[in-house]
Amino acid sequence: MPQERKVNGVNVDQLFKTIELVKGQPEIARFKFRAKNNWVGGTHNRATVKDFYGALQEDDSRALMIFEIDEPPVLCGLNLGANPVEYLLVALSGCLTTSMVAHAAARGIELKKVESRYEGELDLQGFLGISEKVPVGYKEIRVYFKIEADISDEQKEELIKMAQKYSPVFNSIAKPVPVSVALDKESIL
Amino acid sequence: MPQERKVNGVNVDQLFKTIELVKGQPEIARFKFRAKNNWVGGTHNRATVKDFYGALQEDDSRALMIFEIDEPPVLCGLNLGANPVEYLLVALSGCLTTSMVAHAAARGIELKKVESRYEGELDLQGFLGISEKVPVGYKEIRVYFKIEADISDEQKEELIKMAQKYSPVFNSIAKPVPVSVALDKESIL
Repeated sequence: MPQERKVNGVNVDQLFKTIELVKGQPEIARFKFRAKNNWVGGTHNRATVKDFYGALQEDDSRALMIFEIDEPPVLCGLNLGANPVEYLLVALSGCLTTSMVAHAAARGIELKKVESRYEGELDLQGFLGISEKVPVGYKEIRVYFKIEADISDEQKEELIKMAQKYSPVFNSIAKPVPVSVALDKESIL
Repeated sequence: MPQERKVNGVNVDQLFKTIELVKGQPEIARFKFRAKNNWVGGTHNRATVKDFYGALQEDDSRALMIFEIDEPPVLCGLNLGANPVEYLLVALSGCLTTSMVAHAAARGIELKKVESRYEGELDLQGFLGISEKVPVGYKEIRVYFKIEADISDEQKEELIKMAQKYSPVFNSIAKPVPVSVALDKESIL
């Protein structure tokens, strides 16, 4: 049996096999990701992640993952966790990085190191209800990547374009996503 | 000295004072939130959050917060953390909850419990580069809130509308945000 090929730590044989399977049966690619949240008090709340649906089945095998969310004192919190807009940057960072690494792997481009930093501009006049003119969400997010690999700067720029093109979180922020929020009238146990 | 008023654990005196300060000097409301990311290997990477700029100054006082990001085995990972699109739901959950709690507090509405759950539909044909027709980002996100408070269902529905109206993360997902991604040519130390 030939050994499975790994590039950048990504099993590219599994990746290409998955792509072929999905081409024959697109339902395999339909995933549902989930989270729950419980308010603790003030600006402190706690999110959990565990199960998801994908590749035609429910997966409940992971251990529960817990995320503390809070604000710094200047925003009425107690620093008990990163704040929601910081978690958004965390999500974006993970997704651009994984998209870059996976798509580089698929093209046989070996990476040595990938680092990135994120800065988002937020005018809280929107959140505070002071001005309807400023966006409530991030006005702008800037990302900078450092890439160490035996490739040219042009190829690095190409990797950055691929990361944006294929990143689900990048595309969920840069483009509008329909979000429905409903009241569940069942009581809390 | 009168004691500071707290509703839902939110210091509403501080909140109203902040609003008055910002009305006089809007620059106070301009924040910059940040994150960094280091690729570890394969689909595993690590994000950190620490400093931010806001209320006219840099704040570097928080302890470093570290977030492990990975994929489940079906997506070529080793389950070393929640995945990027799950972190996006975590961010959304924290922001809708805090927006609801803070705006309820500002209106003097006392909440007992707030729980919510999130489900996002993602078709990985976009990420895998199989189809240009399906969105690369979330196709749709659905949120359900349970609210325990001595108020009517109509008032609960009103709270849900406020949460959406004032939540920075909700508005960063439901509406497009400009995201620039650039190559930083400085070498990694």
